[in-house]
Amino acid sequence: VLLTQMGWGDLGAFGEPSKETPNLDQMASEGMLFLDFYTANPLCSPSRAALLTGRLPVRNGFYTTNAHARNAYTPQDIVGGIPDSELLLPELLKKAGYTNKIIGKWHLGHRPQFHPLKHGFDEWFGSPNCHFGPFDNRALPNIPLYRDWEMIGRYYEDFKIDLKTGEANLTQIYLQEALDFISKQQASQQPFFLYWAIDATHAPVYASKQFLGTSQRGLYGDAVREIDDSIGKILKHLQKLGISENTFVFFTSDNGAALISAPRQGGSNGPFLCGKQTTFEGGMREPAIAWWPGHIPAGGVSHQLGNVMDLFTTSLSLAGLQPPSDRQIDGIDLLPAVLQGKLIDRPIFYYRGNEMMAVRVGLYKAHYWTWSNSWEEYSKGIDFCPGQNVSRVTTHTQEEHTTLPLLFHLGRDPGEKYPLSFTSDEYQRIMERISVVVQQHKATMVPGEPQLNVCDKAVMNWSPPGCEKLGKCLKAPKPDPKKCFWPH
Amino acid sequence: VLLTQMGWGDLGAFGEPSKETPNLDQMASEGMLFLDFYTANPLCSPSRAALLTGRLPVRNGFYTTNAHARNAYTPQDIVGGIPDSELLLPELLKKAGYTNKIIGKWHLGHRPQFHPLKHGFDEWFGSPNCHFGPFDNRALPNIPLYRDWEMIGRYYEDFKIDLKTGEANLTQIYLQEALDFISKQQASQQPFFLYWAIDATHAPVYASKQFLGTSQRGLYGDAVREIDDSIGKILKHLQKLGISENTFVFFTSDNGAALISAPRQGGSNGPFLCGKQTTFEGGMREPAIAWWPGHIPAGGVSHQLGNVMDLFTTSLSLAGLQPPSDRQIDGIDLLPAVLQGKLIDRPIFYYRGNEMMAVRVGLYKAHYWTWSNSWEEYSKGIDFCPGQNVSRVTTHTQEEHTTLPLLFHLGRDPGEKYPLSFTSDEYQRIMERISVVVQQHKATMVPGEPQLNVCDKAVMNWSPPGCEKLGKCLKAPKPDPKKCFWPH
Repeated sequence: VLLTQMGWGDLGAFGEPSKETPNLDQMASEGMLFLDFYTANPLCSPSRAALLTGRLPVRNGFYTTNAHARNAYTPQDIVGGIPDSELLLPELLKKAGYTNKIIGKWHLGHRPQFHPLKHGFDEWFGSPNCHFGPFDNRALPNIPLYRDWEMIGRYYEDFKIDLKTGEANLTQIYLQEALDFISKQQASQQPFFLYWAIDATHAPVYASKQFLGTSQRGLYGDAVREIDDSIGKILKHLQKLGISENTFVFFTSDNGAALISAPRQGGSNGPFLCGKQTTFEGGMREPAIAWWPGHIPAGGVSHQLGNVMDLFTTSLSLAGLQPPSDRQIDGIDLLPAVLQGKLIDRPIFYYRGNEMMAVRVGLYKAHYWTWSNSWEEYSKGIDFCPGQNVSRVTTHTQEEHTTLPLLFHLGRDPGEKYPLSFTSDEYQRIMERISVVVQQHKATMVPGEPQLNVCDKAVMNWSPPGCEKLGKCLKAPKPDPKKCFWPH
Repeated sequence: VLLTQMGWGDLGAFGEPSKETPNLDQMASEGMLFLDFYTANPLCSPSRAALLTGRLPVRNGFYTTNAHARNAYTPQDIVGGIPDSELLLPELLKKAGYTNKIIGKWHLGHRPQFHPLKHGFDEWFGSPNCHFGPFDNRALPNIPLYRDWEMIGRYYEDFKIDLKTGEANLTQIYLQEALDFISKQQASQQPFFLYWAIDATHAPVYASKQFLGTSQRGLYGDAVREIDDSIGKILKHLQKLGISENTFVFFTSDNGAALISAPRQGGSNGPFLCGKQTTFEGGMREPAIAWWPGHIPAGGVSHQLGNVMDLFTTSLSLAGLQPPSDRQIDGIDLLPAVLQGKLIDRPIFYYRGNEMMAVRVGLYKAHYWTWSNSWEEYSKGIDFCPGQNVSRVTTHTQEEHTTLPLLFHLGRDPGEKYPLSFTSDEYQRIMERISVVVQQHKATMVPGEPQLNVCDKAVMNWSPPGCEKLGKCLKAPKPDPKKCFWPH
């Protein structure tokens, strides 16, 4: 289960003040809560590419070199996508007889060569891009929904999202798809990998009628409640079918809560600094729960430093497969942490585009670069750290600290508010240790070819396969490739 | 159990990222978690006076009129204390045959007439003031510890607190006192009220040797872990003695975490704004757990708006007593909320000194005045909202909003970052409702005589009763009463 921009602080089990996620909280109490789990990037597409390849975006190509340290993703006019040279988790699982399905947002490119069924998935129900704009402007393409190879309609046109009331039935549709797929696999006794990547918590946030107005938190909370309810139903379905002890379920999110959308359309990053788009904890620390009754000790709490890339390696391990040996894999096998409560020493790297902004080693985090966003954007009201300005930390110019990194102790100071004194013994001692990790990382880094540099309106979803059957083909403009503009 | 300046976000059950409070989390899972529980004041003495009288500090005299909206408490040179005219919870419980003991910090005045044994308590082991300064400067009086009527030593001199290492054995001593008292009461089959008011989480923070260095959060976390362990031992002791089903236990704190002491000596207020000294949520929303096996349904979560003053009324209710009818009581009986999950409609008033700064009704909170602290203090580095500046909200001048209050929806926006638009229908509708509540409150308010206006070095703990037996009497200077200076 991969949510989009749900924050660390959005679940009751993680301290959300309204405690409106009884199913996820129960999942945690029956499984293992990961408190130090990270995404690979503070933005959606690169995180998803990292999850499915087990590799940092800077290796798998999901980044830009158009400017320094910029967040990039896959809007409709992006030319790039997941390279054929990358090996995705479903491609590898196929070799072990798994049937692979993606339900929801793909986000690894929408041109024909990037189609998920060309990258290991057997089935797809969902959209190639995020469900936002152009909001039923039919002259521009609304985002298509696919069933497998062909589109079956478009958001706003055939799959309604009422922007005024926030009503949409999509989570229910995605839930039913999941339950049906699980039933089918159980009936045929086939092993399966289900990547349930719903998007109700991404602005414009939506929920079904039965959940609208039921949360103390407004529409965003309604969406969270519906997702919580859906996950409860999926877990109960696995139990009812008698396959819960054969099914490893992992819940997490692709980036921190988008504070620019808060409070009506955005979530909470708990005690952490800033949100989506930043390499502070609020941008990349994620809620995470592992569930596997009969295998994972109930009620466990793990401080293992984890990353979405670990789901690649861990899933291979569960299927009895080895990760590819011809390339650098950043994900580790979490099974010793999950099953035996072991703690594996490993660093967490915080990238923004082509730059390693920060690194975490143990409880310490060193910032080599800081940036929230530009003064130009900030003066227009775009604030990734609303109400959280920390002097010399949440900077509006890109600040280099490579000679003297800003160092935080995330145990004493989870909010990254109090940098350690550069002259302290603790600073000296810890930075010696961290420097070795960073040097090793940089020395062996081979960046992939950047996929998110070029944009072209001609590549938008004008005429996805299947559009002719629906009378929904639109005429693309002439090709006009340009460098994409990534402002932050 | 009343802690001092432990924050809402300091317990695992409330989302603290290190999850180091297994005993309190278990207490919550066996009892009821209160998510919307408040103290009566963002500072220690007034909150404690409110808890024991069931009345707002502005009624019971625990406030100052030396300047507008100032926090005041009971340092060593305070002349005032709890008035004889106030009826304290132990005074009333005595009538129902209860034995009452206070262990820890009293804080309702240290001159002879304010002694806790003159106000209903039968036994006392602890100190009249907070354990800070003058830190073993024997020319000024260090804070005395009393056993019942007489002092038995002083902090730093006879009861060691090592300020360098943070080592002190005091929580263990206070724990043993509690266990012994409970055993004695159980043996004699006497009903009892134990007010366990320890102070290890107040700066200078301390912990026993066996807990030092065991937390991911540093010394503050070590203190929290020791308290968590102690509370686990108290609950197990009740169970072992077979009286857990006859003993109502409530856990809470007297004000929000002191962010000026963070991160080494201060806690976390979770997602809430600012800390101690302020009337934002971080200053007054508290962790709270009710525990009473066999009576309170296990694992309950309550959104009842609660207040420490309710512990007065609820305790009387448990003892079969009525609250006094000759005075305004602000606390309500929480038993319907605790035992039957009912929600009682009631407002929460946020006072700072003599001013009602804000009020909460349902999920809405209206600020009639805002102030963090003065520019003068702020420029010296005293910041009650570090890293949390919210424009026009965390103001450094006292800002009056009485004609157009700042309104927040605490469900959508627990961090008080996004005031509702004054021109919205929602604002109009809600403020109409809140205005009625505020008018009624103000119309019937009879302030008590302010007790915290006058300070005099002559009243410090120079020669507490019993000092002569220990050779610890110091000579007081001549009386020189002055207006106390309360800077914030």
